Amino acid sequence: MDPDGKAPEPHVLILGAGFGGVAALKALRKTRARATLIDRNSYQSFQPLLYQVATDELSIDEVGFPLRNLLHGRPRWAFHRAAVTGIDLHAKEVMLDGMGPLGYDYLVIAVGAVVNFFGVKGAVEHAFPLYTLRDAVRLKAHVLKSFEAADRDQSIVDDGALTVCVVGGGATGVEVAGALAELIRYELKDDYPDLPMDKAQVVLYEAGPELLAPFTPGLRAYAKRALEKLGVEVRLGDSVVEIEPARVHLKSGSVVKAHTLVWGAGLQANALGAALGVPLVHGRVPVNADLSLAGHPNVFVVGDAAIATDAKSGRPLPQLGSVAKQAGHAAGGNIARLIEGRPTQPFRYLDRGTMATIGRGAAVVELPWGMTLTGYSAWLAWLFVHLALLAGGVERSLTLRDWVWNLLTRRRGKRIVID
Amino acid sequence: MDPDGKAPEPHVLILGAGFGGVAALKALRKTRARATLIDRNSYQSFQPLLYQVATDELSIDEVGFPLRNLLHGRPRWAFHRAAVTGIDLHAKEVMLDGMGPLGYDYLVIAVGAVVNFFGVKGAVEHAFPLYTLRDAVRLKAHVLKSFEAADRDQSIVDDGALTVCVVGGGATGVEVAGALAELIRYELKDDYPDLPMDKAQVVLYEAGPELLAPFTPGLRAYAKRALEKLGVEVRLGDSVVEIEPARVHLKSGSVVKAHTLVWGAGLQANALGAALGVPLVHGRVPVNADLSLAGHPNVFVVGDAAIATDAKSGRPLPQLGSVAKQAGHAAGGNIARLIEGRPTQPFRYLDRGTMATIGRGAAVVELPWGMTLTGYSAWLAWLFVHLALLAGGVERSLTLRDWVWNLLTRRRGKRIVID
Repeated sequence: MDPDGKAPEPHVLILGAGFGGVAALKALRKTRARATLIDRNSYQSFQPLLYQVATDELSIDEVGFPLRNLLHGRPRWAFHRAAVTGIDLHAKEVMLDGMGPLGYDYLVIAVGAVVNFFGVKGAVEHAFPLYTLRDAVRLKAHVLKSFEAADRDQSIVDDGALTVCVVGGGATGVEVAGALAELIRYELKDDYPDLPMDKAQVVLYEAGPELLAPFTPGLRAYAKRALEKLGVEVRLGDSVVEIEPARVHLKSGSVVKAHTLVWGAGLQANALGAALGVPLVHGRVPVNADLSLAGHPNVFVVGDAAIATDAKSGRPLPQLGSVAKQAGHAAGGNIARLIEGRPTQPFRYLDRGTMATIGRGAAVVELPWGMTLTGYSAWLAWLFVHLALLAGGVERSLTLRDWVWNLLTRRRGKRIVID
Repeated sequence: MDPDGKAPEPHVLILGAGFGGVAALKALRKTRARATLIDRNSYQSFQPLLYQVATDELSIDEVGFPLRNLLHGRPRWAFHRAAVTGIDLHAKEVMLDGMGPLGYDYLVIAVGAVVNFFGVKGAVEHAFPLYTLRDAVRLKAHVLKSFEAADRDQSIVDDGALTVCVVGGGATGVEVAGALAELIRYELKDDYPDLPMDKAQVVLYEAGPELLAPFTPGLRAYAKRALEKLGVEVRLGDSVVEIEPARVHLKSGSVVKAHTLVWGAGLQANALGAALGVPLVHGRVPVNADLSLAGHPNVFVVGDAAIATDAKSGRPLPQLGSVAKQAGHAAGGNIARLIEGRPTQPFRYLDRGTMATIGRGAAVVELPWGMTLTGYSAWLAWLFVHLALLAGGVERSLTLRDWVWNLLTRRRGKRIVID
């Protein structure tokens, strides 16, 4: 325990470079630990804004941050782009695709979630999820190509070429539905003067009776009105049972002609949790109050992969970026304490509120002490919170200024699709 | 010929939205003609800067311009994203992929060129050309993935994972070799602290005795020195005879271990010229002094697809963006004259000089009246000329400011590759 570094340097291995993993790494800055970050991509995605990539408001460079920038000036940190294929808690080793196994003294598991299609037939093949940067680029390319195809052959318009179904009335579904409606109304309308744009529809399906179920009733009603004002058709109490390339089958029995279906309906735990050989809760890994794994005080699980309990309410914490980020920071801090021979601390989540946007200029915000905001003031609040979050990311520079400028001026991207 | 538009509006069909096609369209602004632009992509690429996309200096949004922006406020103009499959000069009709044929009163053929691999074995499969935006994105992804692969498994470094061969000592080869050397030296070196970067080599092969053959001997010698200063190995008088995924076979008999081969060695005429049924010169379409096709005064051919003769020297004009742009403008002007019942004018190319950059901060410039520039002053001249060219493009706005800022501060992109 020699702070001048003569003692052997402990090795911290962090799996996953989302909000949780990167926050854990940064919390190790002042320690003498070697740290290795592993992710299947060379960039971190700012997930709350993926829907803006899908709707051509932001470019991939504005939402992706190169992870190798974290290494600059930090000779004890390493990054490898690799997929995790297995974890051996007893041998303290992680198996990776394309390279040899890596040993660790401390492990942070922050591998996130994967999209849950709930077994809906055809969803894996034909639905467009929105969980990764690649998903966002795929969705954008598909929407723009559908409009180009309809421009070449207008007969496919009545087959649903310009109709987009969005499944899921949570924040993802509401935000992407609003942004798609704006893309069509403000941009594609000018680009395709000969297409019958009244047939370019966005339809949002929510199986439950309300949009944005975790928000207050007033905010839910506002969100529905705001979406409808943008031209989005909101269908509550109905759900999708089968998806074909150009048809969507609903539980109510009707069949909708639509060439695009966006899946914003839910997440499931990453399969890696099951490889740990511990009992799981809904596929997620239960953790101790200090975020460590029961029986493995040197292993921490954070973010969507974990199920942590709120110290105050005793209820499980939601799968949100802010929970992942704070938990990652706490896990990194606890590892730093263990390295120094000090006891760990329990994780306390600080709820700063939740929000969702409906197009540019409208949003709903619910603050933890009961205050709510709607409309332009809520949207400005959303803007500043995300600005602050982005500024805490790996890189900032031009991105922030351009992003605010683009939002305020309604400027969009270039609708460029590279085949 | 009623200028108030009561006479039937003639239809101008423009094939290809490169420098030539877009310039022809813009020259029709003040006419009463309907105009339809056809391209296989929905964007125009600024080809002189493609190498900067490949080396992560510019994003695709900065080098691609959405063609549909040209339509805004111009109800008589149309654009369709489609491939041209045939031209029937007698029926005055063009066949398109995915949509019905289009008739025309006036036709502008500006379909450009395609890469010429000169029959080198394995080139089609394994070489990375640099003629389209897609080519640039592919090359960037391949280079970055090679470094990631070597990071996971250093044993492939000695197999040539970090070695890039560039074929062709013309402007494309020189510019991409210099920019790749800088990417490695200034950016990837920091990103991959554990890789042996002395083994990350850029080797430039030119079959002839000199780089940049059309330039003066002083500029050629300067370009070679400047490249070597950046660490590029310049091999003159040798050429590539076969390409394998990780091996390059040279005419001299030696075999080079390299996982990347950039092909900057030449272009050939687009096959569409052959479909016209007129005698071709090296696959290119010979045109009259007014750029019209012999026997078809309503058909104009411009840019790389055409072979136009310089009015002054009597020699064929080179395949340059500036020739295509001026010829497109002249062809559009001649169509405007024909619509008004006036005679066409012969095309006169105004040579404003040629230039090539070697990394950031060095360039060679040859002006038409014999003056030459090298070094930082030449690079600044190159910068301002391209600024002026970009500003004349479809869109400008943030791109220009960011581009100059990035160049001056040596800032690069985010090395993001979406699989």
